[in-house]
Amino acid sequence: MSDDLAERIASGERRALARAVTLVESTRPDHQAQAAELLEKLRGLNRQALRIGLSGTPGVGKSTFIESFGMALVRTGLRVAVLAVDPSSARSGGSILGDKTRMDMLSREPNAFIRPTPSSAALGGVARRTREAIALCEAANFDVVLIETVGVGQSETMVAQMCDLFVLLLAPAGGDELQGVKRGIMEMADLILINKADGDLKATATRTVSDYSGALRLLRKRPQDPKGFPKALAVSAVAGNGLEQAWSEMQSLAAWRRDNGHWDRARADQAAHWFEHEVREGLLARLREDEAVKGAMADLARAVAEGEATPTAAAREILEKLR
Amino acid sequence: MSDDLAERIASGERRALARAVTLVESTRPDHQAQAAELLEKLRGLNRQALRIGLSGTPGVGKSTFIESFGMALVRTGLRVAVLAVDPSSARSGGSILGDKTRMDMLSREPNAFIRPTPSSAALGGVARRTREAIALCEAANFDVVLIETVGVGQSETMVAQMCDLFVLLLAPAGGDELQGVKRGIMEMADLILINKADGDLKATATRTVSDYSGALRLLRKRPQDPKGFPKALAVSAVAGNGLEQAWSEMQSLAAWRRDNGHWDRARADQAAHWFEHEVREGLLARLREDEAVKGAMADLARAVAEGEATPTAAAREILEKLR
Repeated sequence: MSDDLAERIASGERRALARAVTLVESTRPDHQAQAAELLEKLRGLNRQALRIGLSGTPGVGKSTFIESFGMALVRTGLRVAVLAVDPSSARSGGSILGDKTRMDMLSREPNAFIRPTPSSAALGGVARRTREAIALCEAANFDVVLIETVGVGQSETMVAQMCDLFVLLLAPAGGDELQGVKRGIMEMADLILINKADGDLKATATRTVSDYSGALRLLRKRPQDPKGFPKALAVSAVAGNGLEQAWSEMQSLAAWRRDNGHWDRARADQAAHWFEHEVREGLLARLREDEAVKGAMADLARAVAEGEATPTAAAREILEKLR
Repeated sequence: MSDDLAERIASGERRALARAVTLVESTRPDHQAQAAELLEKLRGLNRQALRIGLSGTPGVGKSTFIESFGMALVRTGLRVAVLAVDPSSARSGGSILGDKTRMDMLSREPNAFIRPTPSSAALGGVARRTREAIALCEAANFDVVLIETVGVGQSETMVAQMCDLFVLLLAPAGGDELQGVKRGIMEMADLILINKADGDLKATATRTVSDYSGALRLLRKRPQDPKGFPKALAVSAVAGNGLEQAWSEMQSLAAWRRDNGHWDRARADQAAHWFEHEVREGLLARLREDEAVKGAMADLARAVAEGEATPTAAAREILEKLR
C-alpha cells in the first residue's frame, strides 16, 4: 500500500499527496508508523521546493495575496502548494482555510495544492505535521511551498524554522506607527511586503515601505543576507502590482543563499532542531498518554495539592519510576 | 547535619536559612538530595508567609520601593524576606541584587533576609530554586516573602504562580500612554502601584492611577477578587507615602481570599502546577545530562542534519531507547 502511495506521490499525483497528508495528521499510532515509513521512502528522492513562510496580522489580505501570488507562480509553469499553520484555530477546532471559500481560483488550478490547517492539534503536533506535509509536497515535485501562519508569536518562530524564506505581509500604516509588529518577528523577516498599494492607499504604502526600509537597516546584519536584504516592497494583491518583483527578489535571495552555503546549512540546522523538538515532545507526550504514568502523576499531583509532599519530592519520585 | 539545620531554620536563624538556600541552589546531586530531605522535614511545620510577587520595568524604583516598604513592615514587627528572580541576569551571570549595594537599611535589619538571584541558572532551574527558597523562608518563620522580578514576560508568569498576591510597580506616565505594559501582565496584577507620587510628579501619578483604575475595570472579573480589586494606588517609595495603605490593601485582599477558600485553592493549584513543571524539566534535563542519551542524540542529530534520516524517524528511535 505504502509503496504504491509513495510512487503516486513521487509522480506528483495530488490525491495521493492529500491522502498522505491525512496520514501524517492522524493521531492513530498505526497511521503514524505508516507515515514515518512513507517519509523514509520518499526521503531518497531528495527533492527540494522553495519553502516560503508567510505571516501577517489578520485583515492584511493574506488569502488574497496567496491567491494572486500563487496564480502568478502557476502561470509561469510552477507547481505551488499552500499549507496553513494556525495553532489558535487548531485549538478551537476551526480552520483558517477550511471554513471559508478562499483562494477560489488557485484551488481550481491543477498545479496547485491547498491544504488547511489540521484541526484539534496541539502546537507541538502542528509543528510535526506541517513539517512532514512540507516534505510530502517536496516529494510530490512542488516547486514552491507557501506556509501561512497568523500573527501569534510562537507560530511565526515555528514556521520560520521550517522555511527557506520568511515573508511578512503588512498593511500601509499612517505616520510612524509600527503596526504592533514585534521586533522579534521583524528580525525573522527576509522580505516585508506592504500590501494594498493601490488606489487611495498607494501613497501611504510607499511611505510605509520607506519607514520599514529604514527600520530594517537598523537591525543587526545577519550572515545569511546578501547586500540589500532584508528588504521592504510595496505590493497590491488585488491589483496584482509588485508580485513579479517580489518573486524575483525571493528567487535572487534563494539563489544567493544556495551559492554561499547558507541554504544547506540552514536546512541541516533546521532538521537537527526538529529532531530535538520531536524528542522533547515525544517525552512529554508519554506523560500525558501512558496510562500507568498518567495514574501515578494524578496520585502524586493530588498529594502535592494537599500538602502531603513537596512538588520537588513528588517529581523525584515519578522521575525515578520513569528511569 | 540536616536535622540540626532544620531545627535552626525552624527557630528562624538567618545564617541557617542562608545556608539552606545555598543548598537548594546547588547543582550537585548530593546537595539536591539533601535539600529535598530538608524541605521534606520542614514541610511538617506548615508555616505560611504572605508571598508577594513584585514586578516592574527597570527604572521604576523597585529596589527603593522594597527598601521603604520592607522597612515599614519590619517596623510593625513583621519579619520580611526578599528574593529576586531574574533569569536574564542569571543567564549573563550577573545578579540584580548582588552587584549593587541596594536595600542598605533593610539588609541591616535583624528581621529581614535578602537573597540575590542565583547566577548561571536556566529559567526552569530558577523556578525551582525560588520556589524552594520561598518554602525555606516560610519555615524560618518569615511573615512576608517579597519575590522581585524584572519585566521580561515569562518570569512574571512564573513568579505569579508562586505567590499569593501579585503587585505591579509602575512609573507615572504622561497622557494616555500605557508604558508598554502588556495586557497579560496587567491581568495578573492584584495591585498596581504608581511610584514616584511626590514632588513634580505627584499630579501625573494621580492621573496615572485613575487611568489604570479605568483600565482595570475593563478587565474580565476574576473569581479570586473581592469588590474593588484589582486596584491602582499612588505611592512614593522615596517619601514613604502610600506604603501603609498599600500594605493594608494587601492584607485585606489576602484576608478575603483566605476566608473565601481562594487562598488554599490557589496554593494547591500552584503546588500541582509546580509538580508537573518539575517532572517536565526533569525529563528534559535527562536528555541534556545523561551521557549515553547525549551521545545517541548527537549521533542522530548529525544523521538528520546530513539528510540520512528524517527528524521524526530519528526521534522515534531515541524515544524507543528511552522507554
